[in-house]
Amino acid sequence: MAKVTYKRELTALLVIDPYNDFISEGGKLWDRLKAVAEANACVPHMVQVLNAARKAGLRVFYAPHHRYRPGDYETWTYIAPIQTATWSRKTFEYGTWGGEFRGEFEPQRSEIVALEHWCSSGFADTDLDLQLKNHGIHQLIVIGLIAHTCVEATVRFAAELGYQVTMVKDATADYSDEEMHAALDVNVPNYASAIVTTKEIVESISSL
Amino acid sequence: MAKVTYKRELTALLVIDPYNDFISEGGKLWDRLKAVAEANACVPHMVQVLNAARKAGLRVFYAPHHRYRPGDYETWTYIAPIQTATWSRKTFEYGTWGGEFRGEFEPQRSEIVALEHWCSSGFADTDLDLQLKNHGIHQLIVIGLIAHTCVEATVRFAAELGYQVTMVKDATADYSDEEMHAALDVNVPNYASAIVTTKEIVESISSL
Amino acid sequence: MAKVTYKRELTALLVIDPYNDFISEGGKLWDRLKAVAEANACVPHMVQVLNAARKAGLRVFYAPHHRYRPGDYETWTYIAPIQTATWSRKTFEYGTWGGEFRGEFEPQRSEIVALEHWCSSGFADTDLDLQLKNHGIHQLIVIGLIAHTCVEATVRFAAELGYQVTMVKDATADYSDEEMHAALDVNVPNYASAIVTTKEIVESISSL
Amino acid sequence: MAKVTYKRELTALLVIDPYNDFISEGGKLWDRLKAVAEANACVPHMVQVLNAARKAGLRVFYAPHHRYRPGDYETWTYIAPIQTATWSRKTFEYGTWGGEFRGEFEPQRSEIVALEHWCSSGFADTDLDLQLKNHGIHQLIVIGLIAHTCVEATVRFAAELGYQVTMVKDATADYSDEEMHAALDVNVPNYASAIVTTKEIVESISSL
Repeated sequence: MAKVTYKRELTALLVIDPYNDFISEGGKLWDRLKAVAEANACVPHMVQVLNAARKAGLRVFYAPHHRYRPGDYETWTYIAPIQTATWSRKTFEYGTWGGEFRGEFEPQRSEIVALEHWCSSGFADTDLDLQLKNHGIHQLIVIGLIAHTCVEATVRFAAELGYQVTMVKDATADYSDEEMHAALDVNVPNYASAIVTTKEIVESISSL
Repeated sequence: MAKVTYKRELTALLVIDPYNDFISEGGKLWDRLKAVAEANACVPHMVQVLNAARKAGLRVFYAPHHRYRPGDYETWTYIAPIQTATWSRKTFEYGTWGGEFRGEFEPQRSEIVALEHWCSSGFADTDLDLQLKNHGIHQLIVIGLIAHTCVEATVRFAAELGYQVTMVKDATADYSDEEMHAALDVNVPNYASAIVTTKEIVESISSL
Repeated sequence: MAKVTYKRELTALLVIDPYNDFISEGGKLWDRLKAVAEANACVPHMVQVLNAARKAGLRVFYAPHHRYRPGDYETWTYIAPIQTATWSRKTFEYGTWGGEFRGEFEPQRSEIVALEHWCSSGFADTDLDLQLKNHGIHQLIVIGLIAHTCVEATVRFAAELGYQVTMVKDATADYSDEEMHAALDVNVPNYASAIVTTKEIVESISSL
Repeated sequence: MAKVTYKRELTALLVIDPYNDFISEGGKLWDRLKAVAEANACVPHMVQVLNAARKAGLRVFYAPHHRYRPGDYETWTYIAPIQTATWSRKTFEYGTWGGEFRGEFEPQRSEIVALEHWCSSGFADTDLDLQLKNHGIHQLIVIGLIAHTCVEATVRFAAELGYQVTMVKDATADYSDEEMHAALDVNVPNYASAIVTTKEIVESISSL
């Protein structure tokens, strides 16, 4: 894998689904994520990368999953299994604490929150691609949840749309080592131009 | 132009931008739209079509323009002239009356409001295409504002994406007869399979 | 996983990348695919599903990968690792036998071949979604190559775009059991509404 | 309208549908286009802009309409009126002179020809957006045919996708002054950041 160099004005941090339901004690899915997330120091790493990006003056984008609202799916003729699961759990319920970003990931002024995505990819049926283009971005540094669903989907779509992707492998997590492995070792290497640690990316962007 | 027949389960009404700022006395753009809209009986016709669609059991979708929020455009490197205009006027300002749908167009339970569009097409960078697919829709009956911008753009995109479009020509309006003419007589006939009056479409869907 | 029922006029078979380079003796990647493909009886199963689909009168679509042509990538600033690999191997070289579909998968009159895809998803940057819509299709039965790249990508995109997907698990193959497992057992179950055998899908569609 | 400045590495020339059927004596549609095209010196201007772009080292992209092939539309359930017209005329028939680019617009090595578009927008259901991103392009200079269909559609889509557009108003043509006016004076000003003459754009890009 070639070493990627970043140009500050072309590079953005993309934070995927930093919801309390995923990564905060008491969140609906935290118990399922906890083992991998803690082994990976996922949340502290996400915070480190975010802080380094802000300090380096990189533009920060958020790709938030759809937050559950009553009536969302009742009328759909076609629905994917992952959406049926989200529906039954009311994950990221709108108006609840679980449907808010964990405190450290509160977007700051001039950071961009894309429209909510309905399935897994932050790009599908949202304005993420438009917002990145409006800001002249071509290089994406990706952190967030969950490795084999929304993160992998967003990385795949980014590559399909022409973006150069860097995946931060210890700033993500999953329900199991197997799913983490499928995402980070089997699939993402085909689509991300670099797969790095938090330590490595913080060094790279701190020197921009 | 061939006569279009509708299948109830494949057909939806698509209502574009029925905001107070456009079509209510006191709205930011009403004074510019008023002459054409009143000559056309645009608002009463829109209401008639909506009521007929509901009565016939057609699915109803709304394609709402982005509502202005502070900070929306300040960071954009690239912006289209129509967005600069929207920005300067703060059209459809979020949290204000002008940014609400006119009362008659309040979505009912089980009607679908797509994500807000940033430019003119209700499809671009939104979930409108997804929502139509989820509901099995292929035939669109289009009403709303403004003929040569959001309406024409949405009709063009719909055709490019494979939908069959019917435009209701007296349930739209524009700033001038010239712009109305450019949309309804010059451009939309290339992309809409039928261009009909309110009277005609109400008859067609009432018999479904 | 709920049992899926198919409506003939809404259902299509989607055949992904049935190139000689993948699935014919002498193809550039056959040696890497052979073990899994033969254990799975991948090619005979693909043929069985195709024949059953044709016999049942289902519409058939093909999603072909870009065939290599000189000059394709030399000017690109951004390129995904999987594209660099394709480039270096000149996979599916245009005008060569490897870049042709294996004989059994020669499209028949009235079968649709989508535009070539540049990365992995048959939907990205092609007319596949349009062609499916033009033909009124909502349910996709997916066969072809390779499980964890083009097949998984196409299944993921299909779900994101609102299609209902059935994956035929013994009518695909991969370079290794691990990659096959990552696709079929870890990821595709989130996006495909059914994962079935050739025997099962042939029964289902034969009774349509 | 603000003055646009171009950065060479961000800017591309986009040439739309320079087919013999449109702009060569003997082409299927030349007789309908001739009056406006000649009054506008459309073809000589297109050549001037192309030459200036090449001399300035700008990247050149082509957005070609689908070339007619037998069987294209017979199976479609949904089809737009403009496609029915193309079908009946067999415009840009594949393998014929009318379906080739006029000689002066033969793409050179390292110029990019996007996938063929089925309706009017060069972006819809093609790889044009991907190819522009792969090459880091954000600013488009647009020339070609026909003003109120493919050109306007491509300009509208470009703006919706986040590109900054410059329209060269005397390097396009149309069937009538009315249609030309609808495109260039009514609609394109909302989506193109600049509308310029050939003389103006040649000066701008010659100084890059």
